[in-house]
Amino acid sequence: MGSVVYSRRRARYFRVRPFHLKLCVAKAGKGDAMTETVSPEHIMQVGLGFWASKTLLSAIEMEMFTELAKHPEDLQSLSARLGLHPRSARDFLDALVALGFLSRIDGKYHNAPDADLFLDKKKPSYIGGVLEMANHRLYGFWANLTIALRTGELQNEAKGGGASPFEALYADPERLKQFLAAMTGISRGANMQIARKLPWKKYQTVADIGTAQGDLVVQVAVANKHLKGIGFDLPEVAPIFEDYVAANGLNERVRFVGGSFFDNQLPSADVLMMGHILHDWDLDEKKVLIRKAYEALPAGGALIAYDAIIDDDRNKNAFGLLMSLNMLIETPGGFDYTGTDCMGWMKEAGFREARVEHLIGPDSMVVGIK
Amino acid sequence: MGSVVYSRRRARYFRVRPFHLKLCVAKAGKGDAMTETVSPEHIMQVGLGFWASKTLLSAIEMEMFTELAKHPEDLQSLSARLGLHPRSARDFLDALVALGFLSRIDGKYHNAPDADLFLDKKKPSYIGGVLEMANHRLYGFWANLTIALRTGELQNEAKGGGASPFEALYADPERLKQFLAAMTGISRGANMQIARKLPWKKYQTVADIGTAQGDLVVQVAVANKHLKGIGFDLPEVAPIFEDYVAANGLNERVRFVGGSFFDNQLPSADVLMMGHILHDWDLDEKKVLIRKAYEALPAGGALIAYDAIIDDDRNKNAFGLLMSLNMLIETPGGFDYTGTDCMGWMKEAGFREARVEHLIGPDSMVVGIK
Repeated sequence: MGSVVYSRRRARYFRVRPFHLKLCVAKAGKGDAMTETVSPEHIMQVGLGFWASKTLLSAIEMEMFTELAKHPEDLQSLSARLGLHPRSARDFLDALVALGFLSRIDGKYHNAPDADLFLDKKKPSYIGGVLEMANHRLYGFWANLTIALRTGELQNEAKGGGASPFEALYADPERLKQFLAAMTGISRGANMQIARKLPWKKYQTVADIGTAQGDLVVQVAVANKHLKGIGFDLPEVAPIFEDYVAANGLNERVRFVGGSFFDNQLPSADVLMMGHILHDWDLDEKKVLIRKAYEALPAGGALIAYDAIIDDDRNKNAFGLLMSLNMLIETPGGFDYTGTDCMGWMKEAGFREARVEHLIGPDSMVVGIK
Repeated sequence: MGSVVYSRRRARYFRVRPFHLKLCVAKAGKGDAMTETVSPEHIMQVGLGFWASKTLLSAIEMEMFTELAKHPEDLQSLSARLGLHPRSARDFLDALVALGFLSRIDGKYHNAPDADLFLDKKKPSYIGGVLEMANHRLYGFWANLTIALRTGELQNEAKGGGASPFEALYADPERLKQFLAAMTGISRGANMQIARKLPWKKYQTVADIGTAQGDLVVQVAVANKHLKGIGFDLPEVAPIFEDYVAANGLNERVRFVGGSFFDNQLPSADVLMMGHILHDWDLDEKKVLIRKAYEALPAGGALIAYDAIIDDDRNKNAFGLLMSLNMLIETPGGFDYTGTDCMGWMKEAGFREARVEHLIGPDSMVVGIK
């Protein structure tokens, strides 16, 4: 059964077949021209890609995958459970089958393995929080992308002088907890890579700057028993961080320090980490954060900055480049950057060496040594 | 140069690398369980797919590909021409490079072959009209997909008893012309397949029901010199149809007949064709149209219905299933259907045989013989 699920989930977005129009395109590295087929499929696939996107986001909103993780269900019982109108229930579910997120076996819908692992709210591996946020906020704000590109101005709740969405978020403990858990979901893979990839034996202490729920420092401390860790973030984050650290049995080695990374000194430690932090800020602010990290580190200490770092050729990591456009939508001056950009800022701040290492998916880290 | 463009445009949406979480999944056809990697990449790629979608739609809105079809341009001159703010201009253009729609060579941006052929407004192969419409209408309406799925009600301008968008469209000749030309762009590939795939020598006359600009009957008449053709649509369409037929030099063989396919008899011909028509209507209306076609055909005549026909297993043609959800958003009762569904309706109307043939991309045709 799992096999059917798994073998079915390959790029089924469109049934791509060659279009009849042809065009002469020279083959790379060869002088002779060859006829290649040029098709409109990729254009249509991306241009109408919001159909597939919104279909998945609505399924997450309805907690469909959480329901199906309990047991497979047929059309009638799943429709009743989710409150689907009969007109399009079957098309909706079968579209999710064709997209690879569900399978249908003997009339019953099952989660595909990735949906079951990452989109079941009851599992700690749930990453749907960030997609819930994308569904109820970003999808609408991105409708104004053209305006953003022409004005350079953000398009979220703060547009035209409105309150920053983060103020409201930090004022509401329940929403803040959900948001920070969503950030954990999206960062987990990279965090586990960092916990393995640095030569941690050389270091005794680590501080995670802008720690949120604390998953980065938690993963690093779990994998490296000799380390003592600090999570540094706004004071409102303390109870959420402390719950998470306790749930991971790390109270003895990991503690919280409250503060703002712009208004306060950063905590001192052998290694400072900034995960998905630098891209939120403009160039001057990025440099301020890197300089403050330099000042808080001992000689030989390391700064780790990780983000969806753009490849130096700026022609491969589409996710990093689109994330930078998301920073346009969400922040006054934030942007994503290449490894070379970040190494330059580190050198300028005084770091004696810097390197880039790929982590997972679109994420890489830049490591600066003082 | 073209080679660089072409070789760069493969699935670069995300740099997909395996995630570290593993899951046992049985291999199809084998008894032994194997370890397979389960990754969140596909979930994130589709869930945030509206970023890439909206980025392409904004580029089309700005007529970027039409500009670059004139000559390649560097960041500064292209930004000035399109009115891009410096904050994100480079990220926007480089995202389009990473997505495969542009290439950047020695600092100048070039159209990729597909973008140059299909997204340059000056070329007859332009298909951007349907994506312009997706950008300024559908993207916003699809924000209400969850509501549509729970109520079964459309979510476009006609929501809550508003006027149908098509009334306003048909009342404005300039907008109508643009809309019908957009429909031509999206149908051209399938139309050319139909012009070759039917045994046209057996027939003398053909009528295209809901003909719009007339590309289907035009392609059929161009490829089959012995045929005489009719385009049937609402009277407002006449001048647009007649211009298009004249531009293709077919005045002698192809003429317009005005009427409503619900209120009037259909024209008689050996072959009747309905391209992207049936999916707009509910089940009873679909059956009415098929019955009226049966009545208008001579014995031995053929009805061709084509759409993004869903595969009978309803687990492969994601585009057809998503198109059906688009009918939920856009119409009171429309839906897409499988080949078996449509063959059943044809048999019920009296057709003695019916078959399905794939055309191109997501489109297939159902052919019924009276």
